[in-house]
Amino acid sequence: MTATDDLLANAERYARTFTAGDLPLPPGLGVAVVACMDARLNVYGLLGLAEGDAHVIRNAGGVVTDDEIRSLAISQRLLGTREIILIHHTDCGMLTFTDEEFRAGIARETGIRPPWAVETFTDLEDDVRQSIARITASPFIPHRDAVRGFVYAVETGTLTEVR
Amino acid sequence: MTATDDLLANAERYARTFTAGDLPLPPGLGVAVVACMDARLNVYGLLGLAEGDAHVIRNAGGVVTDDEIRSLAISQRLLGTREIILIHHTDCGMLTFTDEEFRAGIARETGIRPPWAVETFTDLEDDVRQSIARITASPFIPHRDAVRGFVYAVETGTLTEVR
Repeated sequence: MTATDDLLANAERYARTFTAGDLPLPPGLGVAVVACMDARLNVYGLLGLAEGDAHVIRNAGGVVTDDEIRSLAISQRLLGTREIILIHHTDCGMLTFTDEEFRAGIARETGIRPPWAVETFTDLEDDVRQSIARITASPFIPHRDAVRGFVYAVETGTLTEVR
Repeated sequence: MTATDDLLANAERYARTFTAGDLPLPPGLGVAVVACMDARLNVYGLLGLAEGDAHVIRNAGGVVTDDEIRSLAISQRLLGTREIILIHHTDCGMLTFTDEEFRAGIARETGIRPPWAVETFTDLEDDVRQSIARITASPFIPHRDAVRGFVYAVETGTLTEVR
């Protein structure tokens, strides 16, 4: 048994008690969340989201690259969301190494230097502001007046807004 | 009150009963999930994930672009995950339009054609296979022998493996 097999057994249990089969495609709350992929950051539990409420976009760091701009553009233009919540968190792996180290390590092992930025950062709040700035600078995202950024503390479960 | 304010009130409630403050950074199950951002796809509920279990990576379509390769490379190389679960779903917005339509619409409104592919698709299972193929073709992801892809049915809550 792999961990994947265990999770598939959980999915069978989920389906047995599933009752949310008639929800519409557009998110009910009109919100898109962009958060770090970190295992300790349970976006559904933290924000009290239920099935159908919000788009959830996640990656290493919770940063905003072209792929998050693509997802947010689709979210707002086609599926009616208007508010964006950004979440970084304490003890983030992205604080523990540098782009140069990571790229050099891959190049040593594989002979190929990745063609993308690794998007590491040295200050959590600064990177939340960087993510907000990338969104508000994008011509592809129509609604940029309700973008708010937060740092989640994995030690205490609390969310603090970045001003 | 915005929808964001309501979700922040939920976050205050979450913090009051929070007890998972001592979890380590690496995901306990050694799994990374790549799923669509769709609001109806509750990855935590579906897979029975708890805080600390798995990396969760999400975007429009649950597709694999450079940003997902970046996140998966960090997940495996620095944080020890070895299994990957890909989840697309029925009634996906990405089936309802084309790259060309979306890019032309943005170009008409803003005068700027996006420099990125929109990653729409016409067949769910084919796109799951495409995502698996992009991962297994990537030199930047060391563990490529436990990559499995699924379609989640938003109507019934069931998960079906793509072979």
